[in-house]
Amino acid sequence: MKLPSPSKLKDIAALINCQYDGSDDHIITGLNEIHMVEAGDIVFVDHPKYYDKALNSKATTILINKKTECPKGKALLISDDPFRDYNKLVLHFQPVSYSMKQISDSAKVGAGSVIMPGVYLGNNVTIGTNCVIHPNVVIYDNCHIRNNVIIHSNTVIGADAFYYKKRADKFDKMISCGRVVIEDDVEIGALCTIDKGVSGDTIIGAGTKIDNHVQIGHDTQTGKMCLMASQVGVSGVVKIEDGVTLWGQVGVKSDIHMGKGAVVLAQSGVGMDLEAGKSYFGTPAQDARTKMRELAAIKMLPDLMKKINA
Amino acid sequence: MKLPSPSKLKDIAALINCQYDGSDDHIITGLNEIHMVEAGDIVFVDHPKYYDKALNSKATTILINKKTECPKGKALLISDDPFRDYNKLVLHFQPVSYSMKQISDSAKVGAGSVIMPGVYLGNNVTIGTNCVIHPNVVIYDNCHIRNNVIIHSNTVIGADAFYYKKRADKFDKMISCGRVVIEDDVEIGALCTIDKGVSGDTIIGAGTKIDNHVQIGHDTQTGKMCLMASQVGVSGVVKIEDGVTLWGQVGVKSDIHMGKGAVVLAQSGVGMDLEAGKSYFGTPAQDARTKMRELAAIKMLPDLMKKINA
Amino acid sequence: MKLPSPSKLKDIAALINCQYDGSDDHIITGLNEIHMVEAGDIVFVDHPKYYDKALNSKATTILINKKTECPKGKALLISDDPFRDYNKLVLHFQPVSYSMKQISDSAKVGAGSVIMPGVYLGNNVTIGTNCVIHPNVVIYDNCHIRNNVIIHSNTVIGADAFYYKKRADKFDKMISCGRVVIEDDVEIGALCTIDKGVSGDTIIGAGTKIDNHVQIGHDTQTGKMCLMASQVGVSGVVKIEDGVTLWGQVGVKSDIHMGKGAVVLAQSGVGMDLEAGKSYFGTPAQDARTKMRELAAIKMLPDLMKKINA
Repeated sequence: MKLPSPSKLKDIAALINCQYDGSDDHIITGLNEIHMVEAGDIVFVDHPKYYDKALNSKATTILINKKTECPKGKALLISDDPFRDYNKLVLHFQPVSYSMKQISDSAKVGAGSVIMPGVYLGNNVTIGTNCVIHPNVVIYDNCHIRNNVIIHSNTVIGADAFYYKKRADKFDKMISCGRVVIEDDVEIGALCTIDKGVSGDTIIGAGTKIDNHVQIGHDTQTGKMCLMASQVGVSGVVKIEDGVTLWGQVGVKSDIHMGKGAVVLAQSGVGMDLEAGKSYFGTPAQDARTKMRELAAIKMLPDLMKKINA
Repeated sequence: MKLPSPSKLKDIAALINCQYDGSDDHIITGLNEIHMVEAGDIVFVDHPKYYDKALNSKATTILINKKTECPKGKALLISDDPFRDYNKLVLHFQPVSYSMKQISDSAKVGAGSVIMPGVYLGNNVTIGTNCVIHPNVVIYDNCHIRNNVIIHSNTVIGADAFYYKKRADKFDKMISCGRVVIEDDVEIGALCTIDKGVSGDTIIGAGTKIDNHVQIGHDTQTGKMCLMASQVGVSGVVKIEDGVTLWGQVGVKSDIHMGKGAVVLAQSGVGMDLEAGKSYFGTPAQDARTKMRELAAIKMLPDLMKKINA
Repeated sequence: MKLPSPSKLKDIAALINCQYDGSDDHIITGLNEIHMVEAGDIVFVDHPKYYDKALNSKATTILINKKTECPKGKALLISDDPFRDYNKLVLHFQPVSYSMKQISDSAKVGAGSVIMPGVYLGNNVTIGTNCVIHPNVVIYDNCHIRNNVIIHSNTVIGADAFYYKKRADKFDKMISCGRVVIEDDVEIGALCTIDKGVSGDTIIGAGTKIDNHVQIGHDTQTGKMCLMASQVGVSGVVKIEDGVTLWGQVGVKSDIHMGKGAVVLAQSGVGMDLEAGKSYFGTPAQDARTKMRELAAIKMLPDLMKKINA
């Protein structure tokens, strides 16, 4: 997320009452999770395994639980609990407030769009022109629906990321401050969920068509003209290029890249990056022809075992 | 779909501004997708691969993108884009109009039926006697619920078919004009979707029981007393005979036939027709005993490979 | 379920017009399904296969379709149709009544809790303190949400168990009279279903976090701090200990026990009890390392088959 206006290191440090290493006037313009960081952002890191990744990322301020050498041109915020303090900053810059109206006062609906009964539009939601939002759809705060979009009944856009930090006796929730952006000409079936980004945008690319019961995790971004059949589940932070097709009940692990035009056959489980233009099948998903050869070989296996045992 | 009243070939051709081959007075009574056509219907075809199928189907008028010999007793509508013109006819005979009331003015509810808060009933929806429609269920236009039916919360009946034509730069949507018919004594769990037929009826047979999160695609028809466990997904145009059981998370490909009393074990993926009375398992689903033998053989495979490599 | 007040055998027999074997004054305090019975309860049994189990269970009154020797200190209710008469008793002691208000008159909401628009709270529902119930959530009668619980949009808590008795020409529904109890600090995603117990409680343990599209069946109980990823489906009467993790699209058969800290990898199908602290994978799920060895061996199988055939 972008801060409402650029802030100084000194002032941010005061908000979370922590030490810092850097110029008082070092400028901070945003707050982002490691997958989404840009120059100007704060990123947080609390595990030694990821220190180097965070220090060398595009983020120019690192909220960290260790005194370490500050990379040139960057600044450190030194906290005993970066996760807690990151959440504190998120809530400071984007305080939670629940609109208690079906259509919030700050929601905007474009010309020619139909908002059917029972729909909930949260704070700052925008709906473009010529959309149809079917009954009982729920759109959480700060989500954006562009033009000519159809969303079928009881779909939920912008619920929180499924993202927790395990403590000894509880899970601490990561506060999601990102958004969902649905581009032009998208159609989304009934009973789908598209979660908001943790700090960035979950994006459904223009012309993409999504069937019923589909789950799209936080910060996942699809290209243009993708197809997702019913009951597909895509985890968070997945990057799907243009023209990808996922058939029914496919599952996709987090942080995967799917090349342009890749096709995943029904019920497959995708656990690795997919190449452009290729077809995949199986759990775990692999090249579809390789998988078919394995299935053919398995069919002959019981007889082979019988012969070997005889 | 049936036309409101029989129409003449000449008048239909004028609506879509196309040439025709046949008598001006040739009668058209309906408009249907190839799987559902009857005498009196228009069917459309735009791919050479399916010309013969359409020309030889029960449809008596063929909307086609080629000048070809007209079968005896039939007529042709010759269009440069049959898909576009089919949609144009659908919208002419069944114009879209969204009821903005939770219970539309034309919805009818039978004696003894309970419609709970937040339920949406679209135009021309009928609910029979002694039904219970739980909170926030949505029933789209023209769907019919017979008697003694229970539908649990947030289920969506009659959303559009997931059916698009791929163009160079977009997917064109097939306009669904069919219905859903839920017969007597059916119970449908929470958060299910049963899509309307493209041009015909999606039917859930009498006494069938469906658990939560189940997806039933367009034009699929089940027999009497079927059971579907949670998270089952059935594609479009599937024909399920009486007494079929689908266990949890089963997926079914489109255009499949399932014989009477067939049983599909959990998480299976059905990609071929199923025989009556048999049990199936696996992805792709096969005879359950054959699959079990394969699984037993696979268990011995790592040791066999070790021996062979030694 | 507990009866509103203790009843006498004679009076219960009169309600269902059946013979009995035992003292007129034998006391009955509850009504329970075989998995949940305690002393004081009636249990029903109508299949010879389960007579002994029911007669020897903790239940002190057995509703049975056979004249048999009455165990010492217990009583028998002798019915030609125990299933029908069990339902009759359930409906007598817990008559169905549907609240037609979004928030029923008997629902109680604790301090600091936010109930957003479109939420339905049935009769006798309680919501503790500092909860957030997002738009269009439905909570059926008699369910209890403790403190600091978050439930995302369009989730359905307390729908009926998927539980029927097959008759010659129909399925008879078991009337669910149990509850759902959601303990402190639980978060439940959007579009989840957690069904009520048939006669006891479905319980989600404190601190458990559940992603979108998850199904939890009747009478299933989870421990503390479990994690369930999107599209997981858990059947009825499953016992999940503390700290269990189920990854995306996992399915779990009914009547399974999962030991503390067990982990089930994505898309697995659990058909047997799981040991504490171990990882599982596959359909059917087995020890994850064993499954990985099988997958590695299968990769070599096509070449082996080619060699053997040559």
